[in-house]
Amino acid sequence: MNIKQIQSASLRLRNNKVFELFVVSIIILSAVLIGAKTYSIPATFISLIKWLDFLVTIIFLFEISIRFIAEENKKRFFHNGWNVFDTLIVVVSLIPIQDSEMALIGRLVRIFRVLRMISIIPELRMLLTSLLRALPQLGYVLLLMFIIFYIYAAVGSTFFAKVNPVLWGDIAISLLTLFRVMTFEDWTDVMYETMEVYPLSWIFYLTFIFLTAFAFLNMVIGIVVNVLEDEHAKEREAQDKADGKITMDELAAEIRELKILLSEKKN
Amino acid sequence: MNIKQIQSASLRLRNNKVFELFVVSIIILSAVLIGAKTYSIPATFISLIKWLDFLVTIIFLFEISIRFIAEENKKRFFHNGWNVFDTLIVVVSLIPIQDSEMALIGRLVRIFRVLRMISIIPELRMLLTSLLRALPQLGYVLLLMFIIFYIYAAVGSTFFAKVNPVLWGDIAISLLTLFRVMTFEDWTDVMYETMEVYPLSWIFYLTFIFLTAFAFLNMVIGIVVNVLEDEHAKEREAQDKADGKITMDELAAEIRELKILLSEKKN
Amino acid sequence: MNIKQIQSASLRLRNNKVFELFVVSIIILSAVLIGAKTYSIPATFISLIKWLDFLVTIIFLFEISIRFIAEENKKRFFHNGWNVFDTLIVVVSLIPIQDSEMALIGRLVRIFRVLRMISIIPELRMLLTSLLRALPQLGYVLLLMFIIFYIYAAVGSTFFAKVNPVLWGDIAISLLTLFRVMTFEDWTDVMYETMEVYPLSWIFYLTFIFLTAFAFLNMVIGIVVNVLEDEHAKEREAQDKADGKITMDELAAEIRELKILLSEKKN
Amino acid sequence: MNIKQIQSASLRLRNNKVFELFVVSIIILSAVLIGAKTYSIPATFISLIKWLDFLVTIIFLFEISIRFIAEENKKRFFHNGWNVFDTLIVVVSLIPIQDSEMALIGRLVRIFRVLRMISIIPELRMLLTSLLRALPQLGYVLLLMFIIFYIYAAVGSTFFAKVNPVLWGDIAISLLTLFRVMTFEDWTDVMYETMEVYPLSWIFYLTFIFLTAFAFLNMVIGIVVNVLEDEHAKEREAQDKADGKITMDELAAEIRELKILLSEKKN
Repeated sequence: MNIKQIQSASLRLRNNKVFELFVVSIIILSAVLIGAKTYSIPATFISLIKWLDFLVTIIFLFEISIRFIAEENKKRFFHNGWNVFDTLIVVVSLIPIQDSEMALIGRLVRIFRVLRMISIIPELRMLLTSLLRALPQLGYVLLLMFIIFYIYAAVGSTFFAKVNPVLWGDIAISLLTLFRVMTFEDWTDVMYETMEVYPLSWIFYLTFIFLTAFAFLNMVIGIVVNVLEDEHAKEREAQDKADGKITMDELAAEIRELKILLSEKKN
Repeated sequence: MNIKQIQSASLRLRNNKVFELFVVSIIILSAVLIGAKTYSIPATFISLIKWLDFLVTIIFLFEISIRFIAEENKKRFFHNGWNVFDTLIVVVSLIPIQDSEMALIGRLVRIFRVLRMISIIPELRMLLTSLLRALPQLGYVLLLMFIIFYIYAAVGSTFFAKVNPVLWGDIAISLLTLFRVMTFEDWTDVMYETMEVYPLSWIFYLTFIFLTAFAFLNMVIGIVVNVLEDEHAKEREAQDKADGKITMDELAAEIRELKILLSEKKN
Repeated sequence: MNIKQIQSASLRLRNNKVFELFVVSIIILSAVLIGAKTYSIPATFISLIKWLDFLVTIIFLFEISIRFIAEENKKRFFHNGWNVFDTLIVVVSLIPIQDSEMALIGRLVRIFRVLRMISIIPELRMLLTSLLRALPQLGYVLLLMFIIFYIYAAVGSTFFAKVNPVLWGDIAISLLTLFRVMTFEDWTDVMYETMEVYPLSWIFYLTFIFLTAFAFLNMVIGIVVNVLEDEHAKEREAQDKADGKITMDELAAEIRELKILLSEKKN
Repeated sequence: MNIKQIQSASLRLRNNKVFELFVVSIIILSAVLIGAKTYSIPATFISLIKWLDFLVTIIFLFEISIRFIAEENKKRFFHNGWNVFDTLIVVVSLIPIQDSEMALIGRLVRIFRVLRMISIIPELRMLLTSLLRALPQLGYVLLLMFIIFYIYAAVGSTFFAKVNPVLWGDIAISLLTLFRVMTFEDWTDVMYETMEVYPLSWIFYLTFIFLTAFAFLNMVIGIVVNVLEDEHAKEREAQDKADGKITMDELAAEIRELKILLSEKKN
């Protein structure tokens, strides 16, 4: 059996629906194992979990090898971000965990194996891609919001640092406090405290809430408009092509033919 | 009076507007009885409520029988989910409640009789159908959100279980705590507690809030776009048909007739 | 000076922009007086406020009389809801307040005089009308939400009344507690309390939050879609008329004329 | 080197991409300095920060001078709001800070230098302009909401001032308390307190929440509709022009030519 045959066999296996379902169920098993480890369980179960965990790693290694062998152009395999992510997760899982520091990394890597669900299911992959595509459009709005946050945090820590250093001690803590105010989480407690020293500090909080709410609203509307427009454009194109209706241009062509007919008769 | 006559009489009764209003008012009575039972009421009233409750059950039994008799194809009656639901509710209501365990089920079934309002009023039925139709579109977004929740819950219970076992003890409790964080309900208390041990744990909460908020936003926009498109498609179709305007195709047909006229003259 | 002359003079005064601005400023004065009364003020100011309050009442009486006299058809005056509202407010303000019970009503009526701002400014009147027009569309969604609330309140007070009678004592209190849960206001405190007795009661809260959030979302989207469609319909109509473009029907008429020309030649 | 040459050199420098990036990085440095000052830092660093702060001021002065010299029409320079803002910030930064009162203003002005980020980056400037353009459309809705707030605040301080003067003491405090209720921040604590004296006061809070939520919803929908319409109008225009499709009018012109051809033959 030469390399070509191995490759085509791998390709058949990779595209097999049953194999995909098997991998998905292994990922689910891996997720269940992660969940089980958070409970206090008897020692016998722990060894079972360890054994199953090792099995999951082996199957993942096998699956990623199949996908690598199935790929005709080996270079292109690592151009795909998802393949790199999968390989990294599997390779790090293989490192034996001995000392406690590496153990933590090992546990974290095992948790991130759940993300393989996204790389396996195409619908989730597409969803994530569309989510990420919406991000750059928001870039400038996020920058504007950060500027608002930064200015308010600077003003806040200038005035309120002495009132409550836990909430307004430096600019980093102030930014966190402002994020808390934006989520309306016990924001009145924060405000009432500073109003005892600066009775007019409600202006600080109210203008901040209005500015961020307004900017956020604008951001949301921005995405909605963008998404709707993309959809409309697609829809219009699809409709024009699909239902085979006579277009303006075809109509005009027919009229032109008529003219030629008439001109022919004339001569 | 033979079976045919009984059926047609039932059909007339079922389609009678006054009968429908009567059934709706009996459902409202049934709801009022449920509410009344939650107050501490004198013994004389309790017996009255029991008697009225029995009356409601009898009327419901009568109404469901009428609908069953009115149906021409008896088999099709139970293909309708709402009919099955109504029959179940009425049948379970008939079981006499003696011991305390059954009593609880009896009370719950009486509460769910209020749902008959939805099965009786067509507008509510349509509303629920349209709500349920929107659910499958959300399937993958909900799966993606669950993956995000699961990973954060696993990370959370790995790191924070020792800080506060009540909130982060195992993965199930961590999931509930994260849902609480997503609703912004005293989330800063949860965060400040873990920040005392892990000063950088604010990254955990802020990324979680951003990810879930962003996914939720996308979900909402997804529904809006879908609903709007359905509406647009319907509207366009309705407009094209309704106002009897001349369509492109009709125009083209007329031009083709013209050509035939010209060709006929030519020969 | 006869009645006709008085009427036309009133009409001129009513439609005078300066007079309208004067009335608006009197309403603002009236609002300021209401606000001032909530502060503890020296006795001399109180008598000034009383005097100004009386002046406002007199001016309002004068203004409403002018509008009544200006109206040609006296019957139609009271067909307008805003006129009835204005007259009522002014008439009740005239009743002298002596005993303490009437004093409260007097104060409330003075507060509602601020609503005259809406009846005076046409833009606000239109805004309110458009808000009210959106309400009936929401009727069935509100009914559905009330059914959800009622069932959860009945289940809640059946199970949790013994856990915390202050929050779940009877169905009315349970409805209020559920509204609180819907606004996410300290809902985890409510949940943790019942979870001590019923560990699975988180299902109750999570399903409730999902159902109400989903129904609410649907409601909002429903309004957006309706408003957008109304706008689109208006816009399309406006465009069709305004820019005088040649319509399909006109084009078809031209083609038909062509046919007649050809047919004439044939014969 | 005469004035003309200096002006054109300034213009070249102003439009230089590298110079723009340099100014942006100086603004970022200025922001970092503001942030650094909120931490307790050793004395040696403080003098460094002071020196850097002075450098930033000098560079800003240089940059604004370049932009002033580059402008052909010196009068038009101050017609641009952003230029006035930049000049003010720089001029106030130049004033030496000695006594403590001026020091505070000096610190605030240094904080507002971060806003220069908006005046420098064109995308942020456009974003802010579009945000501000949306404001006037909301004017009447904001006025309506203020009327609702004012009436509820007046009613609230009339009834509840004796229950809790800290929350309902006068109309200004009541307005703040109502804003708190609108953000759902511990609103049940406010309600439960007044319900002990007035058991029906839940009506006050629920109607307020419904009214403000409904008005707010309407406001948001208003903006969405406006933005979408603007977008649609632009899009339609762009499409009509760009893709050079045959329009109805052109089609009609062709048909008219046909008629002329036929008529010519007839005669």
